[in-house]
Amino acid sequence: MELALIAWLREQLAKSTSGPARIGDDAAILPWPNHQDCIVTTDLLADRVHFQLAEAGPELCGRKAVAVNLSDLAAMAACPIAVFVSLLLPRDQPIDLAQDLMRGMFPLADRFQASIAGGDTNVWDGPLVVNVTALGMARPGKAWMRGGVQPGDLLMATGPFGGSLAGHHLTFTPRVTEALYLADHYDIHAAIDVSDGLALDVWRLAQESGCGVELDLAAIPIRPAAGQAASRPPLQCALEDGEDFELVLSASPDEARRVLEDNSGLLDCHVIGRAIDGSGLWGKDADGQVRPLAASGFVHR
Amino acid sequence: MELALIAWLREQLAKSTSGPARIGDDAAILPWPNHQDCIVTTDLLADRVHFQLAEAGPELCGRKAVAVNLSDLAAMAACPIAVFVSLLLPRDQPIDLAQDLMRGMFPLADRFQASIAGGDTNVWDGPLVVNVTALGMARPGKAWMRGGVQPGDLLMATGPFGGSLAGHHLTFTPRVTEALYLADHYDIHAAIDVSDGLALDVWRLAQESGCGVELDLAAIPIRPAAGQAASRPPLQCALEDGEDFELVLSASPDEARRVLEDNSGLLDCHVIGRAIDGSGLWGKDADGQVRPLAASGFVHR
Repeated sequence: MELALIAWLREQLAKSTSGPARIGDDAAILPWPNHQDCIVTTDLLADRVHFQLAEAGPELCGRKAVAVNLSDLAAMAACPIAVFVSLLLPRDQPIDLAQDLMRGMFPLADRFQASIAGGDTNVWDGPLVVNVTALGMARPGKAWMRGGVQPGDLLMATGPFGGSLAGHHLTFTPRVTEALYLADHYDIHAAIDVSDGLALDVWRLAQESGCGVELDLAAIPIRPAAGQAASRPPLQCALEDGEDFELVLSASPDEARRVLEDNSGLLDCHVIGRAIDGSGLWGKDADGQVRPLAASGFVHR
Repeated sequence: MELALIAWLREQLAKSTSGPARIGDDAAILPWPNHQDCIVTTDLLADRVHFQLAEAGPELCGRKAVAVNLSDLAAMAACPIAVFVSLLLPRDQPIDLAQDLMRGMFPLADRFQASIAGGDTNVWDGPLVVNVTALGMARPGKAWMRGGVQPGDLLMATGPFGGSLAGHHLTFTPRVTEALYLADHYDIHAAIDVSDGLALDVWRLAQESGCGVELDLAAIPIRPAAGQAASRPPLQCALEDGEDFELVLSASPDEARRVLEDNSGLLDCHVIGRAIDGSGLWGKDADGQVRPLAASGFVHR
């Protein structure tokens, strides 16, 4: 099985525009630029947990496996370099499935100049499992981290939240372009990508930074799909659903203002709250009332 | 689940001797030395395919998941840097299982100064799946590849073959030390680690190099366990079983002789054949008869 798939992959990689990937060794060799840290993330996705293969089809599932990893690189302001794909394929027509998965991966990797530089394929009697590891680069000290939020900072989001499972989680574009542009032009103190729910992930940002966060509940951009299928109000969906893969960025008020006034056409940022002394997650409603907010977020079914 | 496990991991990493690993960001930051390529390998292992969790226990399964990746780095003569672990855990007591898996990983990673620098944890209703990605470094042009075998080269093995599933596949030490020593002191043309069977992997080495290989069947070192449980002769087990994780190295006859005479005490290499003009895999028996050899190898059950 693996030999036939590798032959097909060689052909695809020959067509791919990105990187000097070479298949056929025990490991991939990535020439690494001097004075660049190596930023690494890995995410495992399984059928019926992170996607429904039968409904979504293999191309979108493969796409998602790469997209969630590129989103993690974006959250660190890392420039994507290479992607590594491990497949655990159901025994029924594994080569067809592997090819369709890869067909969903190549365009997204190409778009951000990341080469699909290696991987591993296996067959078993269980459902599809895909693990992707993505490598990116960032200049030393320049990668964004979660722990850099400073009390007084404004928190910005790169887009709306909630209702992602209606489709966005399969088709979103990771905020790589926005992140690299922001890192080049603005002083961002900290960042995270929202995968497990806005409330939980902002709470994590606050925890890592040793401060609190007050979300301005009326200012949180909400995706139209939020709440449509759920019995919960749209704001709650925006806070809890997860899989939004928007970035939350922390910057000084002056710098945040500059970001909001950016006229490159690349950004659509919204201030959603501010960092405060102390700890915990707080929500300010439209009347100015401030209450503690539960850091509950998305848990995969 | 993930929060509790991450708290435990933070404690373990604080105790670990290797590397500046930091948990809690969207990706890991590895300061990368100048003038060093980044060598990357990834392997996915599943319960009942690559190990039997119920028989072997989680520590040995976790250990194996790291060991097979370090073996791939060894096959490239890459110095291990970091390891990334994705877990897909059965819903029954996932934290205990994750901790036991990691307990099998830490000592092996520490032994070769690789930090466990990141990962991903998930729970589902299926069997255990573990994906490990390992990063290593090598000076540009110095990583061994499969395609460098030259006709006339002698092929050497770092140890015996066959019968690995009796236990060796769970307890083997990847040949990292041997590889780094060999790369420093000798001119090795090409290498591969034998995971899918000596015959198949040597055939791959020949294919990538555009030459043939004649194995000296009487000279292949055979593990005592080879053939004990099987109905096949020990030599056939040595050629086909796989999961040996010994290196096969190619070097000129003069250089191979120097390797065999090495008195560092680090090596126990055996000449097992030679590269020839042409193509294909050939076996020479004790009588000097040369016949084509099937490149069949281990297929995971």
